Amino acid sequence: MADRKRLFLLTNDDGINARGLSSMIDLVRPKGNVFVIAPDQAQSGMSHAITVKYPIRIQKQKEEDGLIIYSCNGTPVDCIKLALNKLLNRLPDMILSGINHGSNSSTSIVYSGTMAAAIEGCLNGVPSVGFSLLDYSPDAEFAGIIKYVDAIIENVIHRGLPDGICLNVNFPVNHSNEVKGIRICRQNKGVWREEFDQRTDPQNRDYYWLTGEYFNLEPEAIDTDEWALKNGYVSVVPVHVDLTSYESLDYLKSWKFNPPVGGSA
Amino acid sequence: MADRKRLFLLTNDDGINARGLSSMIDLVRPKGNVFVIAPDQAQSGMSHAITVKYPIRIQKQKEEDGLIIYSCNGTPVDCIKLALNKLLNRLPDMILSGINHGSNSSTSIVYSGTMAAAIEGCLNGVPSVGFSLLDYSPDAEFAGIIKYVDAIIENVIHRGLPDGICLNVNFPVNHSNEVKGIRICRQNKGVWREEFDQRTDPQNRDYYWLTGEYFNLEPEAIDTDEWALKNGYVSVVPVHVDLTSYESLDYLKSWKFNPPVGGSA
Repeated sequence: MADRKRLFLLTNDDGINARGLSSMIDLVRPKGNVFVIAPDQAQSGMSHAITVKYPIRIQKQKEEDGLIIYSCNGTPVDCIKLALNKLLNRLPDMILSGINHGSNSSTSIVYSGTMAAAIEGCLNGVPSVGFSLLDYSPDAEFAGIIKYVDAIIENVIHRGLPDGICLNVNFPVNHSNEVKGIRICRQNKGVWREEFDQRTDPQNRDYYWLTGEYFNLEPEAIDTDEWALKNGYVSVVPVHVDLTSYESLDYLKSWKFNPPVGGSA
Repeated sequence: MADRKRLFLLTNDDGINARGLSSMIDLVRPKGNVFVIAPDQAQSGMSHAITVKYPIRIQKQKEEDGLIIYSCNGTPVDCIKLALNKLLNRLPDMILSGINHGSNSSTSIVYSGTMAAAIEGCLNGVPSVGFSLLDYSPDAEFAGIIKYVDAIIENVIHRGLPDGICLNVNFPVNHSNEVKGIRICRQNKGVWREEFDQRTDPQNRDYYWLTGEYFNLEPEAIDTDEWALKNGYVSVVPVHVDLTSYESLDYLKSWKFNPPVGGSA
């Protein structure tokens, strides 16, 4: 046991100084060695973006017993790639992303840097979980949900995740002990409808700010993450990275391609 | 017929001046009205990123009979959101993204701005297709594949796509008439293993360039996009945006959460 402590790799998309990341560091330090690499500023909405146009720089912020912290000018996925391919000399035992300030449930998963980091870990064969609290405030309070974060991490440690599966965990906003429990869910169908806030700058040129509102496309469903969160539960969605719609394969195979393009399957 | 021409919305992630986008414009102009909004510079690897930290600006580049072209300083997904929510007064009949210079097959779909634009269209209920040619060169030659692009667009127009499904279409590099046909495929399992090219700047600070190599994790499979492309076929993968791993739900429901957190599903 003593010869090999568990190694946790942590990142987020709110940046190195976010409270949600500090809460996660505090939680996992007693469990093993902790290596943190997180963006030097907020990278919300960066999804699975990687940095190819600009050089990536990192800076060691701290190194003390069992804890190393780097900041990085790249995206959350850059952070994971750097850690796995350059900075660590072995695969971590687990990748933990977050705790994010704000929801990554339902369709928001596709925009989320937090979940992209977890998915990147998963693609590389590391058990990975993204955690998000439905509170965008920089002062969001994580104390009330930590025992649930811990319960999920302990299950991943002791029971494991299936190959190619990571978890998208979201927490309802927590006042005192309002959380009712943990629900295993599917991803809700929804869409962000955007309002673009149009303004004019001092040079008289128009510009836009993206602002959006989430629409639930299946408000009656009770097996989704949206339902769980709205009803005071923690939502846990098992996530994979195969985007194939298997049920559409036969339909597409019935298409005729004109001009004839021999050999269509 | 005369009262309502088809409306095509086009974007890409290589930027407004890319040859792949020009080829697409030329192909669809005879089919209806064409509205183009594309990044003002290359946005490769931006995935589903949205711009929330900076103002978004657009500039009209051209307006002539049946063709309007805007450039935008945002990501491909920003372009689609702007078009659907601000610039167009009705939903387009189809969204076409690309033709991308470079592959977006297999796992590359998660990093792809081209496919993110198509997925964003799909989330908004518009039939959407992303097209990519396995040639990263700015001078890539699209003439040889245009008849296949056309065949796929015509099928989408006349037969339609299932709700919530878009297409990821990739083309092998085409010398003369090497393409053997069109294959309907599933997404191959693979991973990008990264090498970080480490350099030192004139101020003696280290920096990194991301460079990677794709590893096929199922080289024996013959029903995947990787197989199709390697064997000279066009690959067509039906894509949906539900990342839930349904086959993992029962396993996760068997987890015990300690401390007891009543109400777990």
